[in-house]
Amino acid sequence: MKGRKIMKVEIICTGDEVLSGKIINSNFAHMSGKLEEAGLNVIWGTTVGDNKEDLLKSFQLASERADAVIVNGGLGPTVDDLSQEVAAIASGNELELRQEWLEIMENFFIKRGRVMTENNKKQAMLPKTSELINNPIGTACGFAVNIKKARFFFTPGVPRELFLMLQDEIIPRLLELSGENIVTKLKTFHSYGIGESRADTLLKNVVDLSPDKIVKLGFQAHFPQLETKLSIRANSLGEIEKNLKPVEDKVRETLGNYIFAEDKNTLEGSIFELLKKNNKTMSISEYLTWGNISKRISTIDKKGDHLKFSVSSNNLDALADKLKLSKNKLSIELNEEITTKVRELYMTDLSLSVMINYQEENEADTYITMSSENDTKSRVGKFIGDEHRITLGSVEMALDCVRRYFANLPFDEKSDFER
Amino acid sequence: MKGRKIMKVEIICTGDEVLSGKIINSNFAHMSGKLEEAGLNVIWGTTVGDNKEDLLKSFQLASERADAVIVNGGLGPTVDDLSQEVAAIASGNELELRQEWLEIMENFFIKRGRVMTENNKKQAMLPKTSELINNPIGTACGFAVNIKKARFFFTPGVPRELFLMLQDEIIPRLLELSGENIVTKLKTFHSYGIGESRADTLLKNVVDLSPDKIVKLGFQAHFPQLETKLSIRANSLGEIEKNLKPVEDKVRETLGNYIFAEDKNTLEGSIFELLKKNNKTMSISEYLTWGNISKRISTIDKKGDHLKFSVSSNNLDALADKLKLSKNKLSIELNEEITTKVRELYMTDLSLSVMINYQEENEADTYITMSSENDTKSRVGKFIGDEHRITLGSVEMALDCVRRYFANLPFDEKSDFER
Repeated sequence: MKGRKIMKVEIICTGDEVLSGKIINSNFAHMSGKLEEAGLNVIWGTTVGDNKEDLLKSFQLASERADAVIVNGGLGPTVDDLSQEVAAIASGNELELRQEWLEIMENFFIKRGRVMTENNKKQAMLPKTSELINNPIGTACGFAVNIKKARFFFTPGVPRELFLMLQDEIIPRLLELSGENIVTKLKTFHSYGIGESRADTLLKNVVDLSPDKIVKLGFQAHFPQLETKLSIRANSLGEIEKNLKPVEDKVRETLGNYIFAEDKNTLEGSIFELLKKNNKTMSISEYLTWGNISKRISTIDKKGDHLKFSVSSNNLDALADKLKLSKNKLSIELNEEITTKVRELYMTDLSLSVMINYQEENEADTYITMSSENDTKSRVGKFIGDEHRITLGSVEMALDCVRRYFANLPFDEKSDFER
Repeated sequence: MKGRKIMKVEIICTGDEVLSGKIINSNFAHMSGKLEEAGLNVIWGTTVGDNKEDLLKSFQLASERADAVIVNGGLGPTVDDLSQEVAAIASGNELELRQEWLEIMENFFIKRGRVMTENNKKQAMLPKTSELINNPIGTACGFAVNIKKARFFFTPGVPRELFLMLQDEIIPRLLELSGENIVTKLKTFHSYGIGESRADTLLKNVVDLSPDKIVKLGFQAHFPQLETKLSIRANSLGEIEKNLKPVEDKVRETLGNYIFAEDKNTLEGSIFELLKKNNKTMSISEYLTWGNISKRISTIDKKGDHLKFSVSSNNLDALADKLKLSKNKLSIELNEEITTKVRELYMTDLSLSVMINYQEENEADTYITMSSENDTKSRVGKFIGDEHRITLGSVEMALDCVRRYFANLPFDEKSDFER
C-alpha cells in the first residue's frame, strides 16, 4: 500500500433547489463521507444552479484540478435538467440515443402500468464515448466520461438512487482508477456515555496495533450517541483481517460496557433482540420525555409483540390520579412506585418508568427504573443543557438502561454527559 | 424598483468537517434561503477544507465572478482556522490587532468567570482596511474586506452566531450594496392537504394582484405540510403594504380551510391555542403511529394542562383487552368505541383516537375520531406509500382534524395525499 498516489476527487452538486437553499444538501455529506470511508479524499465541492453557462464553467474548473469528479443531479426528463447536454459540450462529444437504456426505461414503465412520455427519451441521450452506468431503481442512468485529464461520473439527484449507484458502481470504479486492486472495510462501534474527546484519548494509540499501520480511526458524534469507526484499505481480505482484528478487539475492550451495538445495529434494535431472546413483554411510562422512549422501540417492535403498552403525560397530577399513586412529589421512590403500578396494570413481565425532574432551567435529574416481579433497578441521571438536550440525554440513558438490565451490567456507570 | 442591477452573490463554506461529510452543511441552505427571501440570488457555492492553498484559490475564483461573497467558518482560535490570514493575503493587506474586539473578548471571558487563553487573541487579528462586524454572542467577530471587485463578508461557523450576524449585519449591508434603500417582507402560509403542484396551479396569477408587480410567490414542501411564501422588496413599508395586501388576501381565500397557521405558527401551536381558548382537556390513543401525534402536542403543552394523558400501542389485543373493547377487528366503529373509552377512562373533555389499518404493504386506511360528551366526528384517510410516508400522512391528518374540530370545519375535505 506504500507510495499510493493520492487521487483528487471533486463533487459538483447541481440544481436550483440546492443552490437556493430550498433543500439542504445532504447528498454532498453522504457522498463525501462514503468516499472518505473508502479511503478517498474529496478536495473541493461546488454547487451551481440549472444554468448551462455555470454548469460548463464548473465542469471546466474541476477538470483542471481533479482526477475524478462526481456530478450529482440534472439527469431528469425536464428541460431544466442539463447534465448530459453540458457533459457533451465539455467533453467535445455529441449526444446519442442509447437504445439499451431506452429499452430498460420502457420496461420500467410497462411494469408499473404507466406510459412513458416522449420527454423521458432525453434520459437515454448520452455523450458519445461515455460509459453507461446502471441505475436499477430509477429512469435516470448514470454515465462516465473524460473531460480533460479528469474522469467525470454523473449521478441522479434522488438520494436512494444516488446512494446505491455510488456504493455499487462509482466507488469501485474510483478505487480501480486509483491504480490498485484495493479492498476496503469499515468497522463501526456505537456507544453511549463516552464523549468524543475522551474516546479519542482512550483510543490514542490503538491504530498502532495494526501490523502494517493501515487502520484509520475516526469518530462521528450524534449526541448523545458516539460512532467510533475503523476504516481500512488493503490489497486483500487477508491483509484486512490481519490488520483490523487486533485494533477491533482493543476498541471493544476499551469502550466495553458503553458499546450498545456494532455496524448496522442500533440501540433500539439491540433492545428488541433482547426482549425477543428473553421472551419478555414490557410496558413504559414517560413523564416529560414526550413518548420518545416508547417511540424508539415501537418503530422496531412493529406488532407490539414485546412492547405492549405505553403511556405518556406531562401532567403529574393526571398521572398520579390515574395510576392511584400514594405520593405525587417527583422522586426516585415515586418513579419506582409507577413501574410497579404500570407493570401490574398492563400485565407485562417488565416495566420502565422515566421522569424528568427539572431543578432549574438548564439542569435536571432524570429518574429511570426498570422493574420485574422479582427486582427493581434504578438510576438517577444528572443532566445539564437546554430542554432539548436534557430530553435527548434522558431518552438515551433510559434505553441504555433497558439494554443494561438484560445484559446484567451496572446501571450507574458514569456518563460523560452528566454534571 | 425598476432597472435594479442584479447583484451576484456567492457563498464559500470552509472546514474539513463540512468537506469530508462529517457534518451536513445546513449553514449553506440557511444562508441561501435567507438571501433569497431578501430578494438576493446566490449564483455559486463552494466548499473547501482547512487548507491555505485551496482557500486562497476559492477566494480568487469567487472574486472574479461575484459582486459579494459570504465566507463561512475558519474564524476560530485554533491553527486550522485560516480565514483571516487568507483574507489578508487575497486582499493584499497585513493582519493587525483590533484592540476594540480584544476588549470585548476579554469582557466576554470575565463575565463567564473564565480566563482568556493566548490563542484567542488570534480572533482579534483582522486584515487592515477591513470593517469589523459585530458578533454579540461569540468570540469570533465577522469582517468585510474587498478582494478585486467583490466585497467579502466573513462569518463564524457556529450556526446561531452565523444566523444572527447574517440577519442583522450582512443582509442589510448586501441590500445597501445593491444600491437602493430597500425594505423586505416575507409572508408565510402553512397548509395541509394541498400538494405543491396544485397550489402552484391554484395560485398561478395571484402575484398579478400586486399593483407594481413586485411580489414573488414561492413554495417549500415539507411533506405533508406545504409552505406558501410571498416575498417582497420595496422602497418603503407603505409600498410593501399596498402590494402585499391584495395578494395575501387572495392566497388566504384560495387555500382557505387548508391553511392551519401563518408565519411562525405551527399546527401543534394552533391546536394548543384552541385547547387553551376553549378551556378543554384531552386524551389521545394511538395505534401504529408510535406516539407521534401525542408527541407533537406534548412539546408545546409542556405542563400537560390540556393534553392530560396519552396511550400508544402496536398491539391490538393488548389495546382491546386494556380498554375492554367489545370488538377487536380494526374498523372505524372500533376507533369510535376507543375514543369514548379513553375519554371516560382518563376523564377528559375530549379524546382523539387514531388507528392505521394496512390494506397491503403500500396502502392503508387510517381511522381518525374526535369525541366529546356530545358529539363524535370521524374520517378515514386513504394513504399510499411506504410505512414512513403513511405514518407521516396519518399523523398530520389527525392533528389537522383536531384543528378542524375546534374551527368547525368539515373533517372530510379531500387531501391531495390520498389515493
